[in-house]
Amino acid sequence: MSAPHTDVEQVEAANTAFYEAMERGDFEALSALWLAPADLGVDEEFHDPADVGVVSCVHPGWPVLTGRGEVLRSYALIMANTEYIQFFLTDVHISLVADTAVVTCTENILSGGPAPEEGAELGPLVGQRVVATNVFRRTRDVWKIWSHHASPVLAEDESDDSPEGDDFPA
Amino acid sequence: MSAPHTDVEQVEAANTAFYEAMERGDFEALSALWLAPADLGVDEEFHDPADVGVVSCVHPGWPVLTGRGEVLRSYALIMANTEYIQFFLTDVHISLVADTAVVTCTENILSGGPAPEEGAELGPLVGQRVVATNVFRRTRDVWKIWSHHASPVLAEDESDDSPEGDDFPA
Repeated sequence: MSAPHTDVEQVEAANTAFYEAMERGDFEALSALWLAPADLGVDEEFHDPADVGVVSCVHPGWPVLTGRGEVLRSYALIMANTEYIQFFLTDVHISLVADTAVVTCTENILSGGPAPEEGAELGPLVGQRVVATNVFRRTRDVWKIWSHHASPVLAEDESDDSPEGDDFPA
Repeated sequence: MSAPHTDVEQVEAANTAFYEAMERGDFEALSALWLAPADLGVDEEFHDPADVGVVSCVHPGWPVLTGRGEVLRSYALIMANTEYIQFFLTDVHISLVADTAVVTCTENILSGGPAPEEGAELGPLVGQRVVATNVFRRTRDVWKIWSHHASPVLAEDESDDSPEGDDFPA
């Protein structure tokens, strides 16, 4: 593939890189993809009611994690407990305004934990369908992850935008 | 309360207005809060791989809804099936960079559907704990909702950022 040129191509490449880092279990690459205070010229110790560019992350079924410390610790933990993971992304949609992009996608996930018994190579493989909203911010021509929110799809009727059987507030 | 002055105060007020519109079942107010192509000077019929400022919405357990049409239809449907709903917001956190804000919060929800039998005023009340990531974009000094992603909290240990018992990808 040639180098991404347009904003959309760059954002899509950043989004793909995010999932590929997870697949490889590459913590360093993943850390580098998340927005850091230094990217925005903000002092690491800066704190404010409006934390400038502070990252947030919601894993499926989890509460909100806020700040690079909490977010990256969660990924270290996930990587330590995941022997195998693969993401098949579908329905990737990119919405751009200036230096911010909102990416939505469906993460069709196949994953396995560590082997439960000696000799086995992998724990049982689990398939999961998750939807994600990923917010990217451009800093010095590089798109970094500002927010990731992923959640399980609990009900779906392909022919209809309005799954039934749930009370489903805002 | 005096009028909100700072960016953070304005964003927090917009976030509150979003939930209050839901509580009142005020579809017009809710529609006005969502980003529209006209807010960005984009032609309504504009389409592109990077849809400029196209909104997206994920209700708890739902797939992604994209564009004002799908998103607003979902709210009309929800409002039609919700007799009573109240949001108690906690853990509100605002992260700002220039004209974009990422708000995370916990939605502690009490809701009830229409009465299942004649004479009853309300269906059974249901409590729910949901976390949300709301992205706001400033247009002409007004903060509009660009993206809303809400998901159920399925496991939580207050003393720990790392709920157990799930395979939990990105």
